[in-house]
Amino acid sequence: MQRNLTVAQAQDTILEAVFRLAPETVESASALSRVLAEDVRSTRILPPADCSAMDGYAVRTEDLRTASNAEPVRLQVAFEVAAGGEATVAVEAGQAARIFTGAPVPPGADAVIMQEHVKADGDHISIRREVALGDHIRRAGEDLALGDSVVEAGAVVRPAVAGLLASLGRTVVSVVRRPRVAILSSGDELVEPDAPIDGGRIVASNSYTLAAMCREVGAEPYYLGIAQDRPEDLEAHVRAALVADCIVTSAGVSVGDHDHVKDVFAKLGCEFVFWGVRLKPGHPMLFGRFPGGPAPGSPGPFLFGLPGNPVSAAVTFEQFVRPALRKMSGHDRVFRPTVSARLRAPLTKRAGRMNLVRVSLEVEDGELWATSTGNQSSGVFRSMSDAQGLLVFPGAESELAAGDEVTVQVIDESFFVSRDRGFEGI
Amino acid sequence: MQRNLTVAQAQDTILEAVFRLAPETVESASALSRVLAEDVRSTRILPPADCSAMDGYAVRTEDLRTASNAEPVRLQVAFEVAAGGEATVAVEAGQAARIFTGAPVPPGADAVIMQEHVKADGDHISIRREVALGDHIRRAGEDLALGDSVVEAGAVVRPAVAGLLASLGRTVVSVVRRPRVAILSSGDELVEPDAPIDGGRIVASNSYTLAAMCREVGAEPYYLGIAQDRPEDLEAHVRAALVADCIVTSAGVSVGDHDHVKDVFAKLGCEFVFWGVRLKPGHPMLFGRFPGGPAPGSPGPFLFGLPGNPVSAAVTFEQFVRPALRKMSGHDRVFRPTVSARLRAPLTKRAGRMNLVRVSLEVEDGELWATSTGNQSSGVFRSMSDAQGLLVFPGAESELAAGDEVTVQVIDESFFVSRDRGFEGI
Repeated sequence: MQRNLTVAQAQDTILEAVFRLAPETVESASALSRVLAEDVRSTRILPPADCSAMDGYAVRTEDLRTASNAEPVRLQVAFEVAAGGEATVAVEAGQAARIFTGAPVPPGADAVIMQEHVKADGDHISIRREVALGDHIRRAGEDLALGDSVVEAGAVVRPAVAGLLASLGRTVVSVVRRPRVAILSSGDELVEPDAPIDGGRIVASNSYTLAAMCREVGAEPYYLGIAQDRPEDLEAHVRAALVADCIVTSAGVSVGDHDHVKDVFAKLGCEFVFWGVRLKPGHPMLFGRFPGGPAPGSPGPFLFGLPGNPVSAAVTFEQFVRPALRKMSGHDRVFRPTVSARLRAPLTKRAGRMNLVRVSLEVEDGELWATSTGNQSSGVFRSMSDAQGLLVFPGAESELAAGDEVTVQVIDESFFVSRDRGFEGI
Repeated sequence: MQRNLTVAQAQDTILEAVFRLAPETVESASALSRVLAEDVRSTRILPPADCSAMDGYAVRTEDLRTASNAEPVRLQVAFEVAAGGEATVAVEAGQAARIFTGAPVPPGADAVIMQEHVKADGDHISIRREVALGDHIRRAGEDLALGDSVVEAGAVVRPAVAGLLASLGRTVVSVVRRPRVAILSSGDELVEPDAPIDGGRIVASNSYTLAAMCREVGAEPYYLGIAQDRPEDLEAHVRAALVADCIVTSAGVSVGDHDHVKDVFAKLGCEFVFWGVRLKPGHPMLFGRFPGGPAPGSPGPFLFGLPGNPVSAAVTFEQFVRPALRKMSGHDRVFRPTVSARLRAPLTKRAGRMNLVRVSLEVEDGELWATSTGNQSSGVFRSMSDAQGLLVFPGAESELAAGDEVTVQVIDESFFVSRDRGFEGI
């Protein structure tokens, strides 16, 4: 087992160990935001035939060569083609066909003129302008020809992809499976949120934070409840977690006498890959794997033993579990974005470990400023719920001055939603 | 009814008309990513008592004034306090208490020393260093005192907020209701994805794109299916939509003879606010409202009549429906973010209407480049599913040169997820 890795070493170790999960076939509506596991090819021609892009009249351009304001051309409206209708009758010389958006262009016609550009008069129309060949006609196969590659494996199913799948009649599609994450609390002092809190008991709130973080990243949490600090109870809970892709525990992985969690995992075959990251908050973190797994030959779940402190648990989830879950979900982009900001007020720490300082972010005079969200004691969870970002205070540094340029990892997804439209509306 | 608004005028008109929806009380787990409709105040003290932040020993600092490498101080370990235990027995002079993370600090003790920093020897420990008052003790109420404001109304329920709610025993919480969006297709040529496509029929794919876009923005779509192009059938479908917060239709709002949709909406009391936006793709868009609504005195649903063309429908949803749904959901940030980029290859258009050009975005040598996703004919939907952004080609311009700095609205949410960690890991 390795010890006391840097954040980068720990992330690299984890991302090398975990792998993209196997595909599953789901209804297309459930595929939104997931990663395609198949190349989708077109089995249809879209549009299925040359069709009108406008409401107007299908015409023969040769009839309109001489059309002008001075000498309008008069055409007889011989028939009508609706969207979804058939186009078997031909438009003859001197004729036009009433046509609607999406309707097939009848034989003989080679352009569509918009209804706004004609003068209708009973069953005739007058046209005062020349029309270019192909005007307002969408060609068969312009959107999709047979066999066209529509979306490649590895692409995220965005809304427009959902629409394309529907167009092709694809009601089910193969996507990468979402990681199932077993979440486990342990500790005799812990209770669920609906229980009384007499005698110094506290709610196992980490599990609720971590489950929400799993949902935010598109993974599927399942919560195994609170294990008591007895080996038998812990073992029963861990066994129930072995069918997961990942196990996320908080607390129980430090060196205290009462931390039975590591022993139980070891007993059940977990191999510990590393313990301890040079990070504050979040030092006592354990990463392991079950090489045999619950089913013979399967790789078994990965273990993320996070610190019990709520802030440390949240910060280590962000740094280590989240990128792993994104990779398992099939994404090639796995990291939270970083931005440059200027520091509002000085920060100090002891040189040695990297600190991730909870900050809020605000734009002032076109510059982004990072401000500590207050008490950085790792127990003060409100500083986490208020934080839009984690400021990277490198290990070697011990002082950052007000105004310094710093790197901030953005953990608040609504930071990238804008208050204004960002462009002139003209 | 106003006509031919600029994009900004149309957005402003819509955002003035729509309003934040009423609150509803939901289970806390369902509140993730939604906007709080109540100020959450603390009804608990957290931690409930002074407690240890470490596994170690609770000590009296006055006993350790003289502790040094040369002259270690020996203390008797008189008893043990576990997390969730009671702390009624006092630590006397010359004594220590074994203590675990989260356990209450017993009377008499005023600091905790980490177990790594003592030498244990039977029921005694030796300490070679002085300990500061309060070391490794988390004070009662340090996280939350009674009555503390925890999260304010208007905040988004991020994972850390979910954890805070759990800590407070809040299993239900008041959040702004998610907009219910009725989605309606109309057209005799349309079929559902599982139907045969003979005779030039095409799938009502817009409804699937638009429903996915609703889900992406956190709204609740419900799909009313395909209405035939007959007033009676349309009216039946529209009546079923009147209980929604918004109705989103695609097609049926231009000026063609077969576009009965507008007539049906007018008949049912819809007031049209504007028709037409100076935007390509997306000109023929209708915005309306039902002042009476389905229930007496209720404002009734808003109507977004989007163009039938799939690209136009998607682009107008992004510009007009999405910000409205975010405002209705309680968010104060409603717009897609914009970024500056350089244009890869020249673009031309006729001066007059703003164009939103579908582009992909890639970083090269530290600069962001925007490249058209190919055929910009509004029918070619693949250019939409490939697009990460919409390049703003202002109305007055007719040419953009390669290398020009342009504004791009980012519509691909994974654009802001990073391929690398963005900081040194030391």
